[in-house]
Amino acid sequence: MKFQIQRDRLVNGVNDVMKAVSSRTTIPILTGIKIVAHEEGVTLTGSDSDISIESFIPRDEDGKDIVQIQQPGGIVLQAKFFESIVKKLPMDTVEIEVHSHLQTVIRSGKSEFNLNGLDVSEYPHLPQIEEDNVLKIATNLLKTMIRQTVFAVSTSETRPILTGVNWHIQDGLLNCVATDSHRLAMRKAPISGGNGEESKAVIPGKSLNELNKILEDTSDELEIVITENQVLFRAKHVLFFSRLLEGNYPDTSRLVPSESKTSLTIGGKEFLQAIDRASLLAREERNNVVRLSIGEDGRVEISSNTPEIGKVVEEVQSESTEGEELNISFSAKYMMDALKVFEGAETNIQFTGAMRPFVLRPTSDDTILQLITPVRTY
Amino acid sequence: MKFQIQRDRLVNGVNDVMKAVSSRTTIPILTGIKIVAHEEGVTLTGSDSDISIESFIPRDEDGKDIVQIQQPGGIVLQAKFFESIVKKLPMDTVEIEVHSHLQTVIRSGKSEFNLNGLDVSEYPHLPQIEEDNVLKIATNLLKTMIRQTVFAVSTSETRPILTGVNWHIQDGLLNCVATDSHRLAMRKAPISGGNGEESKAVIPGKSLNELNKILEDTSDELEIVITENQVLFRAKHVLFFSRLLEGNYPDTSRLVPSESKTSLTIGGKEFLQAIDRASLLAREERNNVVRLSIGEDGRVEISSNTPEIGKVVEEVQSESTEGEELNISFSAKYMMDALKVFEGAETNIQFTGAMRPFVLRPTSDDTILQLITPVRTY
Repeated sequence: MKFQIQRDRLVNGVNDVMKAVSSRTTIPILTGIKIVAHEEGVTLTGSDSDISIESFIPRDEDGKDIVQIQQPGGIVLQAKFFESIVKKLPMDTVEIEVHSHLQTVIRSGKSEFNLNGLDVSEYPHLPQIEEDNVLKIATNLLKTMIRQTVFAVSTSETRPILTGVNWHIQDGLLNCVATDSHRLAMRKAPISGGNGEESKAVIPGKSLNELNKILEDTSDELEIVITENQVLFRAKHVLFFSRLLEGNYPDTSRLVPSESKTSLTIGGKEFLQAIDRASLLAREERNNVVRLSIGEDGRVEISSNTPEIGKVVEEVQSESTEGEELNISFSAKYMMDALKVFEGAETNIQFTGAMRPFVLRPTSDDTILQLITPVRTY
Repeated sequence: MKFQIQRDRLVNGVNDVMKAVSSRTTIPILTGIKIVAHEEGVTLTGSDSDISIESFIPRDEDGKDIVQIQQPGGIVLQAKFFESIVKKLPMDTVEIEVHSHLQTVIRSGKSEFNLNGLDVSEYPHLPQIEEDNVLKIATNLLKTMIRQTVFAVSTSETRPILTGVNWHIQDGLLNCVATDSHRLAMRKAPISGGNGEESKAVIPGKSLNELNKILEDTSDELEIVITENQVLFRAKHVLFFSRLLEGNYPDTSRLVPSESKTSLTIGGKEFLQAIDRASLLAREERNNVVRLSIGEDGRVEISSNTPEIGKVVEEVQSESTEGEELNISFSAKYMMDALKVFEGAETNIQFTGAMRPFVLRPTSDDTILQLITPVRTY
């Protein structure tokens, strides 16, 4: 294998595939990056066996040469070293050449590295995915949907299925739900393509977080293929594979109460800031529980009290309140996570009593919903 | 105590004094910030007993009201909570009032905090410093001198005196030296004021790092008073006290070799980058040792070799080389620290053999000097 390549394109490709490389892996070759030079260009691959990322660097683009292939071939190089080397090389172009015994020379200007490579044939194959059911969605919309749901997945392995986001595709609609059993986040949006069949997948939260990092904020279409145990995301020059979580995701449709006893409409930004301040004196080890009081006169107060430190009372101006008066306690962290998703938009909260989960929605957007379970205080 | 204050000024003052507050202290009241309201304004104090910082917020400045004192007095409030509260308060002004039993109310808009305070009379007094020997130096010059020396102090407590920077003031010249016994950094500059007497102080590296964080990058004069066991730095509205290290600083004047067998003059930036790359394949646990070779023909090579990973050779263009050829090994980290101080300037390095410390100086600046001890390799 021997080729010359534009360094900035190589750095970008390496940055992408590094998102899948873990230094803690039981399969030694996966600490490496697979580099393959072929007729069309150079393909880089990184994988931790849960996530695999493939980045393609074409020979040329928009009439500009990016890669010059002298001799096709492949090698696996230690990701940690290869990454820091290509980032720090002195010139705009880099030459990579494999000699005998997998010895690989990386050359740029008067800088020359010799790395011990690993045999490319020993690198695990990427999942084979049949492409008869290709879904399509704008990249930036998908990024937003991920951000609006993934924070609510469980971080505990007690119920592994809850560490993923539940995707349900039916009738041209993608519905994403995440819950850690204390709170729930839901977002839906239209999706195109596909063969019209209902489709389900529970995608690990970690995969979605990594995917979000490498996807560009563009309205370009992203292709999605879901199989029984894998999902593939295909953007320009990047393939992202993730395994799916096995098992049945709990039915969350019945968790959302249909009735309401108290309704509060409030400015999202002011409410978030008041909760944030009230949480300052709430005990962290108890999830920063704060108390919300809605009086008969429509007065809204947020408070917390930790006797050894002090107490705080915040009065917030609401847009409107309806129904019964209410005293309810909840995790300030969960409330702030939920309100951040609404990005300051006016928010409506529907309560059905101090012990029942309550529902948050932006008043002008019915595609997002958040649910929070209150905390019993004594 | 009762006063109203501009929130941004309070936040700035708290930020400054927080640099001295440690959550790990054996004196509980030092986890607090001392707040005193008096005729002239409000004074904040933070201390970990090694470093003490006092920040003064005047009643008014440039004709603008900053503080309105209703009732003078003082209180000590938990620094961690007080800091996060004042940063997040909703309005531009804050009211602070002490009620009975040290209960302190912090009010801003419709936000009201009640904090349990501590008795201000129990807060330790700041050192009393006689001001008959006041030195003066431009703030930004002092910041540069700190940055150019403090990185070389020892981080080990084996020889506590080496964890400080040795300041020596004589004949209007301030000379700063730091060494961890493997490398040494020196910087000198004129200083004004003072009573003409020779003055010495070993200032803890930690204190100088914190001082550097709170000093503004201005050419305004800073006042310095050195006593037997304390140093005081006085900037506009801020006093910074540090204890001095006790004991005799070793005589470093004889460490700098007066002769040289090989001389290398080289562009600081290119040399730094080549060392940085060569260090990528050098073993971290052995201080990233790299090898420098200066050939008879003036060829300069930097290399490192770790058999299980690979090797690297960097050829660097020198401005000039003189004297004997040389093969020498040293810590890439120490070399990079030294070169960073020179900010890319052309650098001259004087060697007196592979086993003797070598001296680095910018070719156009004789106020800075760095010394590095080589590493024996087998």
